[in-house]
Amino acid sequence: MALQDAVALKRNEEGIAAAVAILKQRFGERAQTGQAIREQHGHTTTYVPTQAPDIVIFAESAEEVQDVVRICGEHRVPIVPFGTGSSLEGQVNAPAGGVSLDLSRMNRIIRVNADDLDCVVEPGVTRRELNEYLRDTGLFFPIDPGANASLGGMAATRASGTNAVRYGTMRENVLALKAVMPDGRLITTAKRVKKTSAGYDLTRLLVGSEGTLGIITELTLKLYGIPQAISGGVCPFPSVEAACRTVIETIQMGIPVARIELVNTLQMQALIAYSKLPYEPQPYLFVEFHGSETGVAEQAELFGEIAAENGGGPFQWTANAEERDRLWRARHDAYFSVLPLRPGAKAVATDVCVPISRLADCIGETEADLTETGLIAPVVGHVGDGNFHLQLLLDTENAAEIEKAEAFMDRLALRAIAMEGTCTGEHGIGQGKMKYLELELGGAVDFMRSIKRVIDPDNIMNPGKILRV
Amino acid sequence: MALQDAVALKRNEEGIAAAVAILKQRFGERAQTGQAIREQHGHTTTYVPTQAPDIVIFAESAEEVQDVVRICGEHRVPIVPFGTGSSLEGQVNAPAGGVSLDLSRMNRIIRVNADDLDCVVEPGVTRRELNEYLRDTGLFFPIDPGANASLGGMAATRASGTNAVRYGTMRENVLALKAVMPDGRLITTAKRVKKTSAGYDLTRLLVGSEGTLGIITELTLKLYGIPQAISGGVCPFPSVEAACRTVIETIQMGIPVARIELVNTLQMQALIAYSKLPYEPQPYLFVEFHGSETGVAEQAELFGEIAAENGGGPFQWTANAEERDRLWRARHDAYFSVLPLRPGAKAVATDVCVPISRLADCIGETEADLTETGLIAPVVGHVGDGNFHLQLLLDTENAAEIEKAEAFMDRLALRAIAMEGTCTGEHGIGQGKMKYLELELGGAVDFMRSIKRVIDPDNIMNPGKILRV
Repeated sequence: MALQDAVALKRNEEGIAAAVAILKQRFGERAQTGQAIREQHGHTTTYVPTQAPDIVIFAESAEEVQDVVRICGEHRVPIVPFGTGSSLEGQVNAPAGGVSLDLSRMNRIIRVNADDLDCVVEPGVTRRELNEYLRDTGLFFPIDPGANASLGGMAATRASGTNAVRYGTMRENVLALKAVMPDGRLITTAKRVKKTSAGYDLTRLLVGSEGTLGIITELTLKLYGIPQAISGGVCPFPSVEAACRTVIETIQMGIPVARIELVNTLQMQALIAYSKLPYEPQPYLFVEFHGSETGVAEQAELFGEIAAENGGGPFQWTANAEERDRLWRARHDAYFSVLPLRPGAKAVATDVCVPISRLADCIGETEADLTETGLIAPVVGHVGDGNFHLQLLLDTENAAEIEKAEAFMDRLALRAIAMEGTCTGEHGIGQGKMKYLELELGGAVDFMRSIKRVIDPDNIMNPGKILRV
Repeated sequence: MALQDAVALKRNEEGIAAAVAILKQRFGERAQTGQAIREQHGHTTTYVPTQAPDIVIFAESAEEVQDVVRICGEHRVPIVPFGTGSSLEGQVNAPAGGVSLDLSRMNRIIRVNADDLDCVVEPGVTRRELNEYLRDTGLFFPIDPGANASLGGMAATRASGTNAVRYGTMRENVLALKAVMPDGRLITTAKRVKKTSAGYDLTRLLVGSEGTLGIITELTLKLYGIPQAISGGVCPFPSVEAACRTVIETIQMGIPVARIELVNTLQMQALIAYSKLPYEPQPYLFVEFHGSETGVAEQAELFGEIAAENGGGPFQWTANAEERDRLWRARHDAYFSVLPLRPGAKAVATDVCVPISRLADCIGETEADLTETGLIAPVVGHVGDGNFHLQLLLDTENAAEIEKAEAFMDRLALRAIAMEGTCTGEHGIGQGKMKYLELELGGAVDFMRSIKRVIDPDNIMNPGKILRV
């Protein structure tokens, strides 16, 4: 699907050769052209073939990023920013070759401002590194997309994850950015304040721009106090509808649920087989509450009542950390439990997001579609946001099966869009979902394209992603 | 201060005459050129003289907005969108004449989606109208900038207010917009979903753009369940520092305070005189908690303990609605209590926002500056966000005093910026703060300008605001 977008991009052979020579001289051992390292940096987690860059540069400072951008700008050579390579829609692929700019060595935590509940970090810091660093401060950074992604990459792809229902996504949690723009200038998008009404919101223009407008070299992020108490539990439901109705009523009641994850019947079957846990093959919600000790107990009790009114339960919950981990283990194992459903297959992830009132319909129609198509794809969902994920188990060598999967994913994206939803809740557009963007947003995409063209007139910043220019 | 920016703009007399003639024919009685109505639509709440538009059009639909934009586009005539006229930095002034596009008659509430906690409204709906409409649904829209502003205007200026510490600003609470762009096209910036990672965030590019990029014709807004219980109270402190330290520790503890407002000594003196309330002339915090009954009691108790540790108190609080209103009455009267401090003076509002760790310093230095300058300006602050407001009581006929006030406001903005803060927490840039924007964000403003130029090449959308192009 992304392939045709990708192969349409022409390589600027002359410019690439010139830039590679200059970069090798400038960066020495931190300029790598070995095949393995290039392929690793152009690796997609999709079935789209790897399109390796010509060279990988390991930058160690914003000044070095500026040097790379200026050299590439002069020779009109693509730059693909790289964090940990955990993006899911081909964002790090290099369809026109060029430079993969690896920012993983820019991994300093510059400041933690405990009084202000914020911190300033370089883009290569991963979310786990940040939280380990913060451990003794009583603070944490909540956004958790699953993978131990880099914070720069998470901002660039507008990542979210299980905690978003309570704490928001990267959209809400980045206060300011420094970024190297296509002309080589380093800009600061905002001051280190909780709110501002000073001019256009360049912070949020860069968040989610997937490296197509500039390269993030520093992030100011919101932090939160580690909750005094956490309660969590699991609850079975007779149907996805009953589970979704429970989620809706829980949120309407103003119960500040911190995580609320749906696991569908097929995913539970996989988990039961994989984790040998005493659950039934039916939809489950995994729930977590953050607050004071009395607060989390009260919230859990209320949730249990709402679930019971919707035919769910028993809701098993606890405020004890070890027991909570035991109850939640199944959810954590979801990713690994899937592959044994079809040994030898590759798991290809996709996601959509719809208004929560349409979630049960969207999942139901999708499950029926899978049954009809004969594809295997368990569902997990960040249902508080109306967001759900499928892991399609595919034989990626089988062209007919890939075609079938592509047709299914087309239907999934269009189904979500028809339900007032989006083709991508938290994976971005990358290469994989370019064809859906215009279907979803129509004429608005022309204005995105105008912005791209005026900021990056030579299209050197991650070309072939998000938009055709 | 804004004046020199304003007078530099040239009027396109020929284009204006042509557009006015066409608009009169097209809109009949809904095209008004009387002096009073024109002046009311160009009225600033500052001391900057009114710069009236040439004509006021009362639009009733997006199609009519498109007509106005196309007519003005063809004749290169400025369009100044107008909601209720409560903006504070000259946003509705018409420095180059043209059309004031009054959207107050586009005031339909199109849909309320209770299950999704969102609603779709036209831009002329005011926040109070929306909340009155929602009353029986158990839902509410929390953003409260004080004035009964239109929701379109609140989005355009990225408004916030007392509830922002808990619920965020318009930045976090607009899910999607429809807007008429300068070429007359109507776009939809996003689907009706809680989160998305589909392309550039045009929603947040328009939020805070003050009508300079497009005209908002529809908003999808987040709603919240009305809290089961609300507790609130007032607490005196020996100093602004002690109050700010209490705020910092309250937020660090994760106490989900819904409002936390600082009133400084001078403002309390004004209130004591105006409202005859039994308070002392010293800094106070006014606090409100939203949650369950046990939750808000627990939060109030905890807050009281933190306040006491910082030398504050006694903290008087209640969960009874009438008593809470009585305790909070002083805060509500703050606006009106100010004028008697200097009879005959005009109150000119300004605000800045700094990291909360710098708030006590910033207020302290500002109070000292006022004393030295001899200006009278009580302080109230949305201190959970590091945001505070001054109401300068000025004789606006006195040029020397205006000069003194401008010099003071320059120092205030630069002081906030030097403390990693912003020259405008929630009033926008408008005309009044254009000169500070470059000081605050430097080279980033060039990219704002590029975006403005590519989206609005003829500079017809609210020219003379935010940026010089």
